[in-house]
Amino acid sequence: MYEMTIRLQAGGIRLYEQIYEHIKKEIRDGKLLAGERLPSTRSLAEYLQVARSTVDYAYGQLLDEGYIEAKPCKGYFVCPMEELIQLEDTRDIINVPDKKDVPDIDNVLSIHNVGMADGKKSGREQGGGEVPAPVQGSHSPSLICDFSPHDIDMSGFPFGVWKKITKNILTDANSDLFSRGEPQGDYELRLTISRYIHSSRGVNCRPEQIVVGAGNDYLLLLLEKLLGGQVRIAMENPTYLRSWRILKSFSYHVVTVDADENGMKVGQLEKENVSAVYCMPSHQFPSGTVMPIGRRLELLKWADKGADRYIIEDDYDSEFRYHGKPIPALQATDEHGRVIYIGSFSKAIAPAIRISFMVLPEILLEKYLRELFFYSCTVSRIDQSILNEFIRDGYFERHLNRMRKIYRAKHELLLEELRPFRKKFAVTGENAGLHLLLKAREDITEERLVMSAADVGVRVYGLSESMAETSMHRQERRTQTESATVLLGFGALKTEQIQEGVRRLKEVWL
Amino acid sequence: MYEMTIRLQAGGIRLYEQIYEHIKKEIRDGKLLAGERLPSTRSLAEYLQVARSTVDYAYGQLLDEGYIEAKPCKGYFVCPMEELIQLEDTRDIINVPDKKDVPDIDNVLSIHNVGMADGKKSGREQGGGEVPAPVQGSHSPSLICDFSPHDIDMSGFPFGVWKKITKNILTDANSDLFSRGEPQGDYELRLTISRYIHSSRGVNCRPEQIVVGAGNDYLLLLLEKLLGGQVRIAMENPTYLRSWRILKSFSYHVVTVDADENGMKVGQLEKENVSAVYCMPSHQFPSGTVMPIGRRLELLKWADKGADRYIIEDDYDSEFRYHGKPIPALQATDEHGRVIYIGSFSKAIAPAIRISFMVLPEILLEKYLRELFFYSCTVSRIDQSILNEFIRDGYFERHLNRMRKIYRAKHELLLEELRPFRKKFAVTGENAGLHLLLKAREDITEERLVMSAADVGVRVYGLSESMAETSMHRQERRTQTESATVLLGFGALKTEQIQEGVRRLKEVWL
Repeated sequence: MYEMTIRLQAGGIRLYEQIYEHIKKEIRDGKLLAGERLPSTRSLAEYLQVARSTVDYAYGQLLDEGYIEAKPCKGYFVCPMEELIQLEDTRDIINVPDKKDVPDIDNVLSIHNVGMADGKKSGREQGGGEVPAPVQGSHSPSLICDFSPHDIDMSGFPFGVWKKITKNILTDANSDLFSRGEPQGDYELRLTISRYIHSSRGVNCRPEQIVVGAGNDYLLLLLEKLLGGQVRIAMENPTYLRSWRILKSFSYHVVTVDADENGMKVGQLEKENVSAVYCMPSHQFPSGTVMPIGRRLELLKWADKGADRYIIEDDYDSEFRYHGKPIPALQATDEHGRVIYIGSFSKAIAPAIRISFMVLPEILLEKYLRELFFYSCTVSRIDQSILNEFIRDGYFERHLNRMRKIYRAKHELLLEELRPFRKKFAVTGENAGLHLLLKAREDITEERLVMSAADVGVRVYGLSESMAETSMHRQERRTQTESATVLLGFGALKTEQIQEGVRRLKEVWL
Repeated sequence: MYEMTIRLQAGGIRLYEQIYEHIKKEIRDGKLLAGERLPSTRSLAEYLQVARSTVDYAYGQLLDEGYIEAKPCKGYFVCPMEELIQLEDTRDIINVPDKKDVPDIDNVLSIHNVGMADGKKSGREQGGGEVPAPVQGSHSPSLICDFSPHDIDMSGFPFGVWKKITKNILTDANSDLFSRGEPQGDYELRLTISRYIHSSRGVNCRPEQIVVGAGNDYLLLLLEKLLGGQVRIAMENPTYLRSWRILKSFSYHVVTVDADENGMKVGQLEKENVSAVYCMPSHQFPSGTVMPIGRRLELLKWADKGADRYIIEDDYDSEFRYHGKPIPALQATDEHGRVIYIGSFSKAIAPAIRISFMVLPEILLEKYLRELFFYSCTVSRIDQSILNEFIRDGYFERHLNRMRKIYRAKHELLLEELRPFRKKFAVTGENAGLHLLLKAREDITEERLVMSAADVGVRVYGLSESMAETSMHRQERRTQTESATVLLGFGALKTEQIQEGVRRLKEVWL
């Protein structure tokens, strides 16, 4: 068993925090390896001469964030590191926060019990009219379980921390935050974002290349001005329907190309004569496909062939991957400035945090500064500052690790519950983030699956609902009797809801 | 002298608040008429059996908001009502706030002393690169006084109230505010805005017609999608350069038409073959021209002649008018749904409040709901709720009246200080909001005026800086020796800065 050599310091940082930070560092530095057992809370408390509750708090935090796991009657063990999100600690570089700004232990440790009303719509899609009302069967019981692939779990949101940061920021000393800021967003936030996406996604950029905006829709509107009108742009089909609709509302010509198990078929791009591509290489929606390095290089090679060719990389949900090492962004491999990287905090923090950002390649940055400098930033400086401190002071990293643990548990539960379905359905989407896909092995239509689920009060999502609306295949996919596929999202559901939902699906599908 | 018949109630509402509300109501209801003298604070305190400081507070509030004025050695007198902004009290209709939510007396009454650092850029234009660096003369002293027409006075911003509302909203009970809201903005805020613009600007609309967005730029981007590409649109010249640049960045063809003392020459629109007009009828920038009813009807008549003709009314600064009754919006006279009304809170509240809104005519609303429903709202629900309470609970009205009083004092001071200039310059722009215009009567170039001011550390703004950048007249206007005109803004300046700035201009211009 690992021997603790923590030197606790009186005053300043709380004791539980010191223990937590020490163990976290040991795990990160590889001094504590996966599978190693930690001392029991009682023995560590005795050894360190602190209250046992102090060690309990520290272990609780580590458990919450997925650094360690508890095995009944055996003790606490270190988890494999590769699955953990690690951000560079930028606190010392930018600004050491006053220790009094650290939220109370109650705020930090009890926040994951703050509940949202059940069934509350809170996902990325909510309000966008993404999902039409389900086709109702003959009798329509009220909705018992909504397997929405777009809703997220807000019960893990650290409201206490967010409130505390907001309160600290809204002091009169910060009254200049009420004045208009820089068009691209405040430099400090851009610096923090650039460090975050470098350490978590391998994205290489200067803060100067980042444009902060109120949501992806707005950033795409800016990009339309930047890339010029009459662009032919390619998307996969099925795809992320909201982005398809936004691009369709532009002066763009949107074409859809096919995808295989490695993602977009790059070969079709030349034939379609497009100059831009919209894609989600680390995690396609809805398929969950991760584009392997070979296909990525092929895509980048296509882009290198024309000076006006660009790839818009929507890295929307990259934080939630449960197996293996995180996959770097496509931008990380781009050597010639062909990739426009777009990220958002809607899913990782909360849908109401209307803050997205894009990383412009140098050549587009120059054009932006020359031609679009007069567009003011759409995010208030107060909101920018709150987000900046949330990331900079380590709360975002903790939140991500905590949420990932929560989602992984739901992911595994749903996989387990779906075991009896495997005879009749292929279950895929292990990298799809917050949903799984069920593909029928026998003859049945997608429409039939959706309707029979609705009959027992369960909402599932047909794959056709993610298909381009003008695509001929859409209606076809709904009614064809081969490979009918539905999406089951679990982000916002509770354990009992997942169990009850699957139980009802069993009644009608098996 | 007017006789007070206030019945004070113990408990609940604060005494000073009861006195303040009572007198305000009497003035609004016309029971207290302009010029009437109020009882002295001593005698009213004795009569009501309250502390004299209580009456002082109440009178202070009324003074701040421009309901009454103090004449030295004579007492307090009622001000003319027509200049005051009156919003409907919607509190009883929507929601009566708990009295404990009313901010402390200190917050409400001392907030106008919260200072911003001098010279802090905080105007509508800041960050947009609107104003190029001044042409420097042979020696360049540091900037002593910046007569920016775009900066506003943030010292009057009620930070305390804003903080209090924010704190109350960020309770866990409101955690659903972190979920995504309606695409057009939350209904409650739209209801509040519809009531506000109806009572203050005569705008007729249902909350359903309002689209809330993060700034005018974003709303214009949405409008581009709504009106379709290839639109020929007309603006006056000189005009509001930011909007000109935004429209130029569209697929629009922007033409400029001439203006006279009644505003845009409507006759030129047919000749220019445009289908849309961007204008500021209540208060043109930079001229300050108020379009009279005759010209307005002419403009509406032009719009009525084509089903695709629309007028975009930018009512950006309508709150700050110092003489006579407020002028209703053009939208108020529009009977056929030709006007798209755009309003913003950037200037009336603070530039960082990234909340604007537009009112769509029914026919465009239908198109919006059909074609653009998937664009999510760009303003966070938390920010929407803060603004909603700020307006709904009467703080906005108080703030506007207080700011108007502050700006009127600066306006009058600048007019007075400029008296010695009248021989050499025509001073106009009494309705221009936060700036005045000086037109040289003798031969001198605008460039010369700007440069000689810069020589003594004063920044003034040539009229050419508000001219369309592609316009041939721009360079001409800068260098022609006739009618050279400069703008002197006073919004963000302190009394001493205005005096010192004018003193220096006197040195070089007179």
